Amino acid sequence: MNTLEAIAARRNVRAYTDEPIPAEVLRAVLDTARRAPSAGNRQEWDMVVVTDRAQLQALAGVWRGAGHVAGSAATVALIAPKHDDPMRNRSLEFDLGQLAMTLILAATEHGIGCGHTAVSEQDLARELLGFPDDRFCAWLVAMGYPADRPIRPLKRHNRRPFEEVVHFGTW
Amino acid sequence: MNTLEAIAARRNVRAYTDEPIPAEVLRAVLDTARRAPSAGNRQEWDMVVVTDRAQLQALAGVWRGAGHVAGSAATVALIAPKHDDPMRNRSLEFDLGQLAMTLILAATEHGIGCGHTAVSEQDLARELLGFPDDRFCAWLVAMGYPADRPIRPLKRHNRRPFEEVVHFGTW
Repeated sequence: MNTLEAIAARRNVRAYTDEPIPAEVLRAVLDTARRAPSAGNRQEWDMVVVTDRAQLQALAGVWRGAGHVAGSAATVALIAPKHDDPMRNRSLEFDLGQLAMTLILAATEHGIGCGHTAVSEQDLARELLGFPDDRFCAWLVAMGYPADRPIRPLKRHNRRPFEEVVHFGTW
Repeated sequence: MNTLEAIAARRNVRAYTDEPIPAEVLRAVLDTARRAPSAGNRQEWDMVVVTDRAQLQALAGVWRGAGHVAGSAATVALIAPKHDDPMRNRSLEFDLGQLAMTLILAATEHGIGCGHTAVSEQDLARELLGFPDDRFCAWLVAMGYPADRPIRPLKRHNRRPFEEVVHFGTW
């Protein structure tokens, strides 16, 4: 796939086959994600990778929208520092979005489907993942081979029309 | 390029040749970016595309780090709604990060270099871009063909080591 095909193939995948992601593929995806850009190249993130079934099932309890984590082949927890400054947090979240998109598109290239989710139960997440008190679990990216159909570029999508989203010159 | 090569080729490009981006290439990049995911598929963004030299030169004044916008072939302003709720803003910024990364990787595939920047002078941005009072200009993504060397996968990069960033099982 070229990049444009991968972007067109990426979709929200929340049901996975039982097939594990080979260790070398998972490592390659994570290694690619590490290249994501960030403000001042601060890379204020860590990735905790969970593949143990019991740990995944417990991790699914960190938010009502995280149930699909239980059946994923691997879930990557994005861990970040806590800041008091709203502008730092704004920049941090933007950078986490860049990291997640890089991670997800790298996985897409390997035929892996991803479904990301927020985290509300921080105490549970910390207990399960062991990150320090000055960090929080910002997002989870669940991964696996799709239960429904392979990852292929989608011809149709449910996005706002081009003419509505894109303005040339001025709004 | 495949996706992994594009991720490895993407770099912060802030000096551009005089060559314009063909209209159909720019349109294709924007059309691909439109596929970026967002929480609840809300797509809370608009993109204002500037290619006029005088307008680009004026737009370079919206932040001390935006000087390179003046010499870009095109700059895409990411416009978003103002929210009071911190959680909505957190989610919005994450989604804007996903949009920016999608836009930048789509441009990379076409050999276009990008340099994104924050915006502090919102009044000036609004005057130049004409977006409504209930929105703000979140980020600018400047684009153009690199003045130094073509966009090619980088063998080396200045990122934290894999073993430091990635934790298996627990932190």
